[in-house]
Amino acid sequence: MADLWQECLDFAVEVARKAGIVIRAALKEEVSVMLKSSPADLVTATDQKVEEMIISSIKEKYPTHSFIGEESVAAGQKSILTDNPTWIIDPIDGTTNFVHRFPFVAVSIGFAVDKQVEFGVVYSCVEDKMYTGRKGKGAFCNGQKLQVSGQKDITKSMIITELGSNRNPEVIKIILSNMERLLCIPIHGIRAVGTAAVNMCLVATGGADAYYEMGIHCWDMAAASIIVTEAGGVVLDVKGGPFDLMSCRIIVASSKEIAERISKELQLIPLVRDDENKQ
Amino acid sequence: MADLWQECLDFAVEVARKAGIVIRAALKEEVSVMLKSSPADLVTATDQKVEEMIISSIKEKYPTHSFIGEESVAAGQKSILTDNPTWIIDPIDGTTNFVHRFPFVAVSIGFAVDKQVEFGVVYSCVEDKMYTGRKGKGAFCNGQKLQVSGQKDITKSMIITELGSNRNPEVIKIILSNMERLLCIPIHGIRAVGTAAVNMCLVATGGADAYYEMGIHCWDMAAASIIVTEAGGVVLDVKGGPFDLMSCRIIVASSKEIAERISKELQLIPLVRDDENKQ
Repeated sequence: MADLWQECLDFAVEVARKAGIVIRAALKEEVSVMLKSSPADLVTATDQKVEEMIISSIKEKYPTHSFIGEESVAAGQKSILTDNPTWIIDPIDGTTNFVHRFPFVAVSIGFAVDKQVEFGVVYSCVEDKMYTGRKGKGAFCNGQKLQVSGQKDITKSMIITELGSNRNPEVIKIILSNMERLLCIPIHGIRAVGTAAVNMCLVATGGADAYYEMGIHCWDMAAASIIVTEAGGVVLDVKGGPFDLMSCRIIVASSKEIAERISKELQLIPLVRDDENKQ
Repeated sequence: MADLWQECLDFAVEVARKAGIVIRAALKEEVSVMLKSSPADLVTATDQKVEEMIISSIKEKYPTHSFIGEESVAAGQKSILTDNPTWIIDPIDGTTNFVHRFPFVAVSIGFAVDKQVEFGVVYSCVEDKMYTGRKGKGAFCNGQKLQVSGQKDITKSMIITELGSNRNPEVIKIILSNMERLLCIPIHGIRAVGTAAVNMCLVATGGADAYYEMGIHCWDMAAASIIVTEAGGVVLDVKGGPFDLMSCRIIVASSKEIAERISKELQLIPLVRDDENKQ
């Protein structure tokens, strides 16, 4: 099936680029904001429009494939991963950035077969950076091959994470105390640009040595996880075990050493899995 | 003196662009890192080389002017602001980013006369964005006029700040508890890209609604402070009073309302002023 998946990847790049044009145009208009799970969990009509556009384009070409999309799930669809070829889509990763015109906004399209991610496309559309990764074939940004930093020494590492959109005071306390423990190791620094997909791609480029987060979703992680792996990086669960796409949590790093050291420092946040029935 | 200062501004842009070429070239080489005040306060030979290049170019053209440069101060020179025309220079704002190739690295050149900032140039050289601001003449990025978001409602704001390079556990605790208080207001989010100058310019573009930090220096703030003001923003001290360039602390915001609300939430970090004798 190798050639068919390559054709799917090429099509994903094309669709992501078209979605990027719509998003960049929308950035010039007035943005009307709605709330989801918290006063900081935002969604806009553009998220919904772009997801609809992406899914309908792909469905037309690949009618037997399955879909998990952030906005479709928000509208009540299930996010269950089966063995069927499945497109896992975040139309706008970094919606809060989009609302504020903070210049990191990405289209994330992952593709899984037999529950394994086969390829991923992350289009950081304000920067015009097209990241791609395909299992066994390497990772690229605008055609240039990506390679993680290879850093193994946590005391020389720069780590990306996010404060997130959960405004539960207990959750915020855990997020901040995890940062505190890491800073005190010490590490070189912490950065936060506001999109999981771009954060992971920055690790893939070698521009940061790790990224971790709890409380994100399969559509935030699917595409970029294979980009990091194919750039030579490591993707783990926050407990240090194998990464689970539906677990809502991830560590990606330039090395196993750094990923495992981060996992040792993290206090966990209670999460509902993406494939649990929330009703 | 209006025309002379415009000539100085044009020259600053030219010098910043040349410095950017040196920095971009250095990003392709192996970077050798030295430590300054803490295991996270980094400096490289490129910082020193670029500062020397900038200051010698300007000195040749304006031999009577004064200079305050990050690396000259690190090498023992005083950072005293007089009424004489004074160039305030950070050759690489975001040295930790530079070391890690995290793509936000800026050349910052401020120019003060009678202790007031007359103009500022911030060249974010990986992005190739040239920000300029001149008193009474507006702020621009690559020729495009800048305007802050105008947001007045803190609960709809996105704020930028940094974890910083101080690894004193007490200081880290204050930094994180300030973030905690802001998140719980609630606000939309917090971002950190690792350079004070670019953070402030992002507020000037309207991409974020505020930035605050304690423990930075006059060379991090001088240039970008006038860019924010000229984009319609507000620059205050963290206690809510007038901004003091030598105080090592700042709030910049899209509105007085947001700046003052942030100042109410901040617990202060003890700081040594830039113009205090540290010996």
